[in-house]
Amino acid sequence: MEFDIVVYNGIIVTVNPDFDIIDKGVVCIRNGMLDRIGPWDEDVEVPAADTVINAKGGIVMPGLVNTHTHLPMSLFRGLADDLPLMTWLNEYIFPAESKYINPESVRLATLLSCAEMILSGTTTCCDGYFYEDEVAKAVCDSGMRAVLGQGVIDFPAPGVPDPKNNIKTAVEFTEKWKGVNAAVTPSIFCHSPYTCSAETLKKAKDTAASKDLLFQIHVAETRNERDQIRSEYHVTPVKYLDKIGILDRHTLLVHDIWVDEEDMEIIAKRDAKISHNPESNTKLASGIAPVPEFIKAGITVGLGTDGCASNNNLDFFQEMDTAAKLHKVNTFDPTVLDAGRVIKMATIDGAKAIGLDREVGSLEAGKQADLIIIDINSPHLVPMYHPVSHIVYTAKGSDVTTSIVNGKLIMKDGSLLTMDIENIMKGVNRIADKIAGG
Amino acid sequence: MEFDIVVYNGIIVTVNPDFDIIDKGVVCIRNGMLDRIGPWDEDVEVPAADTVINAKGGIVMPGLVNTHTHLPMSLFRGLADDLPLMTWLNEYIFPAESKYINPESVRLATLLSCAEMILSGTTTCCDGYFYEDEVAKAVCDSGMRAVLGQGVIDFPAPGVPDPKNNIKTAVEFTEKWKGVNAAVTPSIFCHSPYTCSAETLKKAKDTAASKDLLFQIHVAETRNERDQIRSEYHVTPVKYLDKIGILDRHTLLVHDIWVDEEDMEIIAKRDAKISHNPESNTKLASGIAPVPEFIKAGITVGLGTDGCASNNNLDFFQEMDTAAKLHKVNTFDPTVLDAGRVIKMATIDGAKAIGLDREVGSLEAGKQADLIIIDINSPHLVPMYHPVSHIVYTAKGSDVTTSIVNGKLIMKDGSLLTMDIENIMKGVNRIADKIAGG
Repeated sequence: MEFDIVVYNGIIVTVNPDFDIIDKGVVCIRNGMLDRIGPWDEDVEVPAADTVINAKGGIVMPGLVNTHTHLPMSLFRGLADDLPLMTWLNEYIFPAESKYINPESVRLATLLSCAEMILSGTTTCCDGYFYEDEVAKAVCDSGMRAVLGQGVIDFPAPGVPDPKNNIKTAVEFTEKWKGVNAAVTPSIFCHSPYTCSAETLKKAKDTAASKDLLFQIHVAETRNERDQIRSEYHVTPVKYLDKIGILDRHTLLVHDIWVDEEDMEIIAKRDAKISHNPESNTKLASGIAPVPEFIKAGITVGLGTDGCASNNNLDFFQEMDTAAKLHKVNTFDPTVLDAGRVIKMATIDGAKAIGLDREVGSLEAGKQADLIIIDINSPHLVPMYHPVSHIVYTAKGSDVTTSIVNGKLIMKDGSLLTMDIENIMKGVNRIADKIAGG
Repeated sequence: MEFDIVVYNGIIVTVNPDFDIIDKGVVCIRNGMLDRIGPWDEDVEVPAADTVINAKGGIVMPGLVNTHTHLPMSLFRGLADDLPLMTWLNEYIFPAESKYINPESVRLATLLSCAEMILSGTTTCCDGYFYEDEVAKAVCDSGMRAVLGQGVIDFPAPGVPDPKNNIKTAVEFTEKWKGVNAAVTPSIFCHSPYTCSAETLKKAKDTAASKDLLFQIHVAETRNERDQIRSEYHVTPVKYLDKIGILDRHTLLVHDIWVDEEDMEIIAKRDAKISHNPESNTKLASGIAPVPEFIKAGITVGLGTDGCASNNNLDFFQEMDTAAKLHKVNTFDPTVLDAGRVIKMATIDGAKAIGLDREVGSLEAGKQADLIIIDINSPHLVPMYHPVSHIVYTAKGSDVTTSIVNGKLIMKDGSLLTMDIENIMKGVNRIADKIAGG
């Protein structure tokens, strides 16, 4: 056969540099790569392939890239809501983590999160948590693509009871997973400037830099954090990180809400990247990151859901919709973050933010074959004047029917092909029953 | 048979005054009414009924009440986005309305909107548009419940070329539909204080009051509107309406963003109701209504989607999620608009806002049988610690499997039982092709 997979009869939203849209197109996949993307003529035979998929006039687009997750936290989905951040963390999340996070719960909850993401169109995520080795194995089993970082924090953590070993554990993870699986890129994830010392941060960043790895960190998420860092170091959290040498083009700053103009200039100058998590930030009442200004400053901004415990789902379509609307109302300007820009944030810019833009994030020949198909034959998607508008403002994760990662079909007609989801849900429910019982 | 329909083996979220939740319950329906709601014991036989539905452990709750729609505007879904309000209205929506809104397009697009609403759990809506007679017929065909108002505006409008006839047409509509169909309650809908003269508003309100009908009006939606009314009448839009006698307990104020404290006191004193439309308000960058303050002032607030052209869907689950999160971040307080409050806004408070709280909005014996079932056996709904949290923060419209209105099953296992949706979509697409072609 000429190709492994051919997808035809779809509206191809390429998200290539010209944002080309092919009204009726075909995508040909060979050896895991996008080989040919172009118009499709009904009178011409569909190229021969082992698997031929008729998109039935639906939207074919790059798989979505979620730049910030804590995959195992789906275990705590909806455990506690509508609470002040510190009550939520100290009275619910931290105690539950210390009691119920272990290799088996991490494995099951990660598979659950991957299932949810695959079913709703996300093909790549960037994660940071504990027992990340289990996360990596589960991600591989699911067929998704991911950048993964073992969490570093200067407190006892699940799997790392002695914080003295936090960097060692994180580095071992990167060594174990470097080059093992094409779909997993190791990374280092430091929790935040208020939970890691300057020494920890510098050491972790130096290691990441020496190995050319992405360095992820939560920063400037809450007003409290900004005030705390200010009172301790007399600068904003972003300036503090810059002062100790953390910011460069391989640094992903997650949240970045409480920033000033100088912070933005610094981020732009260092070419550090931002992960914007509007649903988590609004649910926790943290604040609204100045995303339109970031973009104006030339900073790369990807979208993220954050963990399921503060969202409470991983549906990236809802995240796109929220991002587009939140910044419009926040600036009283309905033209900011237009649908095309938000799609870029959810695909190519997200891929760039986590260092994978040469591999994924757009449908271009030579890139890895990560794509999804959105069915448009539902009442809520009729009529369709502009597919770009529909992706952001109308479609839901449940409209995604097909998902291909690395040239492999991992979801077809809404069914997961890589895992026994019934058993995974049962396993997670068994643990959740214990959590609910206290 | 003892009952017409029995739903068993569900988690019953009653939204009764005590917000009772029955972990494993049964709902019995007879003659269109809720006859019995209570716990269900697996060892006891399910009550006999013509139709017996196993909720399979899913959530059974009152059908959702959407307090503000323009049903026929699904025809313009996504026609134009990311534009300043006046460009959007004057260059896209108004020209398309004047050219393509006619009885047949209104009928088809209303059926399409009803299909979308039924499929996503909404059982009642409150609508205002033109050719409302066609809207009413379509709503009846769909099996939904609705409060409907023929639009009044002091400009030539679809079906009412001479504005001199605007009130007459609206009143004729109310006379024609009074008592004709249990599911349709007529109403009068005046567009706004800046598109209707004081004389029009007073006359319309007097007629509504004399017939005990709901009076709907958009008000204080944009800063421009507030400034315009201020410069003309030297008061806020709400005070202007109060001065001319529009506000009472049968008045539904839609949007109410640009209000001050005195406005809130007036609204509370008059017991006027509010329809809050967070997705439309954010998408159009109109502003954020002070909903937590409305609630503190004792004002009844329902939720609404607004028309599909400014949302761009009618999924009320997304609307609930947006409402809960938007006000948290807007007040920096994660405890405001908790999930229970938002569910009330989407059910019983919405019903109260449109004058139907004695009929619907909660599952209580003696009320009309309007209910939905949410399937919870999907990865994104696992685990479930609190059904109330899941309804607002996790579930989507696509998780609704079953819908009953007025004791009649109108959707089962995700399939519409009242209409030929394929043909309706085809019909809408035919008109949309013309609109797209100019």
